[in-house]
Amino acid sequence: MRAALTALLSLVATSALAQQPLDVPAKQLPVPNTVSPQVQKLIGAPLRNNWNIQPKTGEEWKVVADQGAEPTIKNLPKLLDDLKVKVEKQTIDGVRVFVVTPEKILPQNKNRVLIHMHGGCYVLNPREAGLPEAVMIAAFGGFKVMAVDYRMPPEAYFPAALDDGITVWKALLKQKVKPKNIGILGTSAGGALTLAMVLKAKELKLPMPGAISSGTPMSDVTKAGDTFQTNEMVDNVLVSRDGFCDAGTKVYANGRDFKDPLLSPVYGDMGGFPPTILTSGTRDLLLSNTVRVHRKLRQAGVIADLNVYEGQSHAHYLRDHTAPETKEVFTDMGKFFDRHLGK
Amino acid sequence: MRAALTALLSLVATSALAQQPLDVPAKQLPVPNTVSPQVQKLIGAPLRNNWNIQPKTGEEWKVVADQGAEPTIKNLPKLLDDLKVKVEKQTIDGVRVFVVTPEKILPQNKNRVLIHMHGGCYVLNPREAGLPEAVMIAAFGGFKVMAVDYRMPPEAYFPAALDDGITVWKALLKQKVKPKNIGILGTSAGGALTLAMVLKAKELKLPMPGAISSGTPMSDVTKAGDTFQTNEMVDNVLVSRDGFCDAGTKVYANGRDFKDPLLSPVYGDMGGFPPTILTSGTRDLLLSNTVRVHRKLRQAGVIADLNVYEGQSHAHYLRDHTAPETKEVFTDMGKFFDRHLGK
Repeated sequence: MRAALTALLSLVATSALAQQPLDVPAKQLPVPNTVSPQVQKLIGAPLRNNWNIQPKTGEEWKVVADQGAEPTIKNLPKLLDDLKVKVEKQTIDGVRVFVVTPEKILPQNKNRVLIHMHGGCYVLNPREAGLPEAVMIAAFGGFKVMAVDYRMPPEAYFPAALDDGITVWKALLKQKVKPKNIGILGTSAGGALTLAMVLKAKELKLPMPGAISSGTPMSDVTKAGDTFQTNEMVDNVLVSRDGFCDAGTKVYANGRDFKDPLLSPVYGDMGGFPPTILTSGTRDLLLSNTVRVHRKLRQAGVIADLNVYEGQSHAHYLRDHTAPETKEVFTDMGKFFDRHLGK
Repeated sequence: MRAALTALLSLVATSALAQQPLDVPAKQLPVPNTVSPQVQKLIGAPLRNNWNIQPKTGEEWKVVADQGAEPTIKNLPKLLDDLKVKVEKQTIDGVRVFVVTPEKILPQNKNRVLIHMHGGCYVLNPREAGLPEAVMIAAFGGFKVMAVDYRMPPEAYFPAALDDGITVWKALLKQKVKPKNIGILGTSAGGALTLAMVLKAKELKLPMPGAISSGTPMSDVTKAGDTFQTNEMVDNVLVSRDGFCDAGTKVYANGRDFKDPLLSPVYGDMGGFPPTILTSGTRDLLLSNTVRVHRKLRQAGVIADLNVYEGQSHAHYLRDHTAPETKEVFTDMGKFFDRHLGK
């Protein structure tokens, strides 16, 4: 009896032990020398200013967003000049877009268009501040891009961003752009919106696009995902799952269940998705959000291409167009679109 | 003058700040709920026993290796039974191999053979202890596998493992197996050996294999790679770049420069490599070693497919053949070989 009890207790102890959390001591992370000097500079930068602010309303966020947009908008002329890209404002069926055109649209891209959904936790990067990714894929891939300047709080709340993306997509279809000649891309909230647009399109029975690119997507805003823990205080952009990005998403979601696949697309049915390229970094807080989408796509039999960049935090690849790694991200992405879009 | 000096000092301060290491506070990592119960159990296990042992000679390592091999060899009959796989010992041109055969070799694999190089830091997993990966790809992929039981310290030192792999490969070529019908795979040291064999084959002007699989390769034993830092004490298998695995590699290398591409294949020229599938996990100490190889292959224009599994530490996918993620790893790997091998 006593032996049996001891054995039982030992079994319980073992199995409890087996599920125990792991204590990780404090550490100091040097800047790796396995990346370019430009990326070293990004990695060596201090944690994002005000990473833990918690604005509670759309109005409060607008102040933050306008302020945050300034440096990006100020730098835009240089980016456009360096990469030889032109930007023109338009309104399509009531939705604000920027038509982003490289000096040379590659011949095979003549009848192709990309739709770009910018990132920024659904509350940041208004107007031209949302453009860097669109400009870089236009330049490095030789594509025409329609960058959607979707409505954000306090102008509108969930599902406004998604609706604006779908409106632009439908407009392209009405203009007789072949469905397979359309690609969709975005990073962070834009990466989630890209996935959510395809989920929504399945519901609406729109024809699928030819390919999509989802960069470090906010694919699970319920905070599930292991790198929310392992890369906390390691990713110097998002920093924490309880930081500014979560606060912004809460305001945009406006009470909507965070597990709704249109907010957390990792919970959606990805059967029938077009070929998808995914991009992340080893320090990215959303690395798990990215690889979980990759696995779900593969499980659904979808062509899905994962790229993880050494040392990079969340969306570092949007921050310096002179970094060789940035060129690599957008060259790889361009090739992927080229391989899978119709002509 | 004073203003200029102040400006200069401020510039120095800024650039020093920009390259400062990042202080990450201590944290407690819960077991994620985004993986199967089997993988939860692997993630929740305590740090590997004796992760920081430092045997200094081949003789000392043999004792550790024999002891460590026991549980794996004891569990092998159940693994073979569950997966319906047979193992037969052979010697090929003086090299010990196990011929691993599934109950059903798939019809398209009739004329194909995989060469398997096991892991274990060049000192562990002797004899049948090196077989689990070979058994799993045989079962889940329907392939015949030649698992090389290569020489390890104290029997032999660098480049014995590599030489034994090459000998088996040459023997298959002599047996008129078409070069493109041969695949090579391995994990950890085996993943590095797989890459090193291809580098060596280029030197020897052997015809390239049809495809290779390099799982979480020890592709850079110089300890360069950012996840050596970020995943230190997070990966519960390797634990630290200064742990047992480094000690084992030192003994095997036997004075050879760690930057030699045959020991650190990430420094090799990967032009002309066959299509390569790479596997890692978000907690893997060698995630950087894996993604850096992926990028190098892509930069060289090689077809390279990266798969990163949620929450997994180094080579967790070899540890439980009942985990759905394990089946996924080997099913994806099998499909990759099927897509790229000749028939």
